[in-house]
Amino acid sequence: MTLNNIDKLGFATALAEARKGSREGGVPIGAALVYHASSAEADCVVLGSAHNQRIQKSAPTLHAEIATIEDAGQLSADVYEKSTLYTTLSPCSMCAGAILFYKIPRVVIGENASASTGEEEWLRSRGVEVILVNNEECKELMRNFIENKPEAWNNGSSS
Amino acid sequence: MTLNNIDKLGFATALAEARKGSREGGVPIGAALVYHASSAEADCVVLGSAHNQRIQKSAPTLHAEIATIEDAGQLSADVYEKSTLYTTLSPCSMCAGAILFYKIPRVVIGENASASTGEEEWLRSRGVEVILVNNEECKELMRNFIENKPEAWNNGSSS
Repeated sequence: MTLNNIDKLGFATALAEARKGSREGGVPIGAALVYHASSAEADCVVLGSAHNQRIQKSAPTLHAEIATIEDAGQLSADVYEKSTLYTTLSPCSMCAGAILFYKIPRVVIGENASASTGEEEWLRSRGVEVILVNNEECKELMRNFIENKPEAWNNGSSS
Repeated sequence: MTLNNIDKLGFATALAEARKGSREGGVPIGAALVYHASSAEADCVVLGSAHNQRIQKSAPTLHAEIATIEDAGQLSADVYEKSTLYTTLSPCSMCAGAILFYKIPRVVIGENASASTGEEEWLRSRGVEVILVNNEECKELMRNFIENKPEAWNNGSSS
């Protein structure tokens, strides 16, 4: 998968968040929301980014994508409609539902080997462009987490 | 729709939250999560309740249902699996996705006349029991809000 420069920026931001989550001992999943008025790099803005905070804040719904949409704050519909959401792991049904609710038209996903929910197909069926990067570092972060904290992962964690 | 006593308690709790939201000038949607180990009333526990806080906290994702799941805190899978979510308005795709993610098997909805997302059918197709109360006060709260703050409603609000 070849990413353009805006996608590289967005994905690097999400991956940096996943690394932060890993250093904090949390679920190492990161996300970023990037607005692109056009395909020119100068026209893009990172609206928000965050990592999963389920363990750190004992907050069950603070998946990386939800926390990122929160971090971006209140936006008008036309901003979401020109944005891409980057996430290091394939989204769960709640986060996929959020992508649909906010009408974010495009999602770039780091990997779906650690947890495959099937929601990518649901997003595609509802008109969202879904791009899979298949990034090794995203998988490695998840593998280390699941090996070290299997009970935390098995009890309700996700993207 | 005839509700049993546990459902009456759960729905009354969600409706009280919607009224709180209305008094605060927020989106008047409330929710509650109730655990029921059996059908005996003594066996039920209100795990959490909340109202939409999009306006009050400038928090786009704090829909009533998401805020309620947050309010209930970290729970094990078997607790969600014996719980019902009560909400005064039919859930959006994010909140419907959360119901699926946490494997909450049953949803009681106050009304779907003010905003119909079609997600009730999606929930049913994935095995969730969906009960529509068709409550007049829920509709009245929404009607007043939309009349008084149409711009707030049209710009991204929902359940």
